[in-house]
Amino acid sequence: MDSTSAQDQARPAGTAAPGAAAPEAAAGMFTCVLPLRWSDQDLNGHVNNARIVTLMEEARVLWLNRQAASAGVGSFSDPKVVASLNVEYRRPVEYDRQLEMELWISRIGSRSFTIAYRALQSGEACFTGSTVLVPLDPAAGTSRTLQPAETDYLSRYLSPTEPPR
Amino acid sequence: MDSTSAQDQARPAGTAAPGAAAPEAAAGMFTCVLPLRWSDQDLNGHVNNARIVTLMEEARVLWLNRQAASAGVGSFSDPKVVASLNVEYRRPVEYDRQLEMELWISRIGSRSFTIAYRALQSGEACFTGSTVLVPLDPAAGTSRTLQPAETDYLSRYLSPTEPPR
Amino acid sequence: MDSTSAQDQARPAGTAAPGAAAPEAAAGMFTCVLPLRWSDQDLNGHVNNARIVTLMEEARVLWLNRQAASAGVGSFSDPKVVASLNVEYRRPVEYDRQLEMELWISRIGSRSFTIAYRALQSGEACFTGSTVLVPLDPAAGTSRTLQPAETDYLSRYLSPTEPPR
Amino acid sequence: MDSTSAQDQARPAGTAAPGAAAPEAAAGMFTCVLPLRWSDQDLNGHVNNARIVTLMEEARVLWLNRQAASAGVGSFSDPKVVASLNVEYRRPVEYDRQLEMELWISRIGSRSFTIAYRALQSGEACFTGSTVLVPLDPAAGTSRTLQPAETDYLSRYLSPTEPPR
Repeated sequence: MDSTSAQDQARPAGTAAPGAAAPEAAAGMFTCVLPLRWSDQDLNGHVNNARIVTLMEEARVLWLNRQAASAGVGSFSDPKVVASLNVEYRRPVEYDRQLEMELWISRIGSRSFTIAYRALQSGEACFTGSTVLVPLDPAAGTSRTLQPAETDYLSRYLSPTEPPR
Repeated sequence: MDSTSAQDQARPAGTAAPGAAAPEAAAGMFTCVLPLRWSDQDLNGHVNNARIVTLMEEARVLWLNRQAASAGVGSFSDPKVVASLNVEYRRPVEYDRQLEMELWISRIGSRSFTIAYRALQSGEACFTGSTVLVPLDPAAGTSRTLQPAETDYLSRYLSPTEPPR
Repeated sequence: MDSTSAQDQARPAGTAAPGAAAPEAAAGMFTCVLPLRWSDQDLNGHVNNARIVTLMEEARVLWLNRQAASAGVGSFSDPKVVASLNVEYRRPVEYDRQLEMELWISRIGSRSFTIAYRALQSGEACFTGSTVLVPLDPAAGTSRTLQPAETDYLSRYLSPTEPPR
Repeated sequence: MDSTSAQDQARPAGTAAPGAAAPEAAAGMFTCVLPLRWSDQDLNGHVNNARIVTLMEEARVLWLNRQAASAGVGSFSDPKVVASLNVEYRRPVEYDRQLEMELWISRIGSRSFTIAYRALQSGEACFTGSTVLVPLDPAAGTSRTLQPAETDYLSRYLSPTEPPR
């Protein structure tokens, strides 16, 4: 009973930060549509709880390794360590519905920052979560301070509380 | 050195059978673009050889469980067993290039059929392969004969040899 | 520089609850060794952060779907929903070292319970975490109250704070 | 109705080449037990066909990157490309049964070799397959000739036809 077609699901990732255009814009968001795979489902018929963590990873890579680089901040492509992860699973994620991801920054530290995630199917939140990321010095393999350009970029998406929908 | 952007990669799956409209059309093809994930890469920096088998599975599901159903042949959504698999890996599959898949039917038997696959990145074939599929009777869990509507549908894509590009 | 051999890694899962034998035993633990796979590693050369969630899942299945069933509590094999997940990643998980998992119960509610996890390589904690699990009524697909036998079983592993090592 | 316990499944990988010790030994085999994971199953309740390719990869890594290295042939740890893959799926692979893998060499070329695989559950073959592997020069990233020590090692496992059981 799902009218979402294959074509819809693979629709271009809308990567615009919706708030950015508004004159008094609050913090922006990175949004994208992530196509699901049949194999994302587990024996229980829903997208597996660990696979959801992979989807969070993919959304973050599209944002920081690609879009930020397009915006001139290439250093986010340096290896990053996930230091902490939280996911609240609210509703099952279904393979045959489009999955929309919304990401923003909930905290900026000196050597780490926190990405917040909200995922929607058919207009309803199916999971929310957060990851603490620690950029590494590529040569030394140890944590490094955030660069001013990075902090600048992240602060455009900073929203310590969950943005309204 | 790759100009393919994230947006390009997630471009809508072109699911048209390109040959179908042409007046003297040879067999059709099912084509789609499969967005890759960062996690599809292995330690060697390319999409992993087993993950390529997952991508073949996904293309096949988009074709037989979705497009064929839209075309009125819903019975392909019955469970199917993969009886045999062959893949020829020709070039590494790179995460940051668009992956185009082309599928056709290379054999139709009474209780099984063979799907052929060709995958392209930047216009070059990166792998080809085939899978023998056996539809199951959902109740009994045993193989069943192909239905006339299934054979009809498959025969529109039948091409015993690899189609030219 | 790692002397752990393949044989060591695949060593039998020690599923004993170590505290159980002690006369005044505190809460028990479920422990197991989880063999890693080369493909668990990502591009950065360590076990991927989402794959670690799969390893937590596997340890939990070995405990609740197998060991609890052997101990006479088969109802944990009913489908369960993961409602919440937390992971603290402390050190990289390396493919060629043995991974020891320790699980216990940190909370027992009326319709849910919380499993706590600690993972060790070479004697050092590499990650800790927790999952809130909600057993489902297999017929209705909705949450159900924990059965007395389930609460009994879980309480033998109850330790609201992280046990010392 | 499966008496295989969790402990059995994680039993040490028997990595001995059984034929090697016998005086008139035919070609040896590399054998191992590969613990399965709940998440290896797909929606159809069996180990997924692509995951089986991952299991073939893992068995090959345990053999060539670990056992061969222990036997003094460390160069197999160089990156290797899978050039070709074939799998015949004979019976479903079940999560709760022990999976035994048998590997041998079916062909030794100058720049590539072919590994053959046979997998058993409860004494019955569930899949067979083969992979053509091409070792790479780590610096140049191009194929290289097999070294004499490599050819020597592989020839101890050479059996162009499937060994009897």
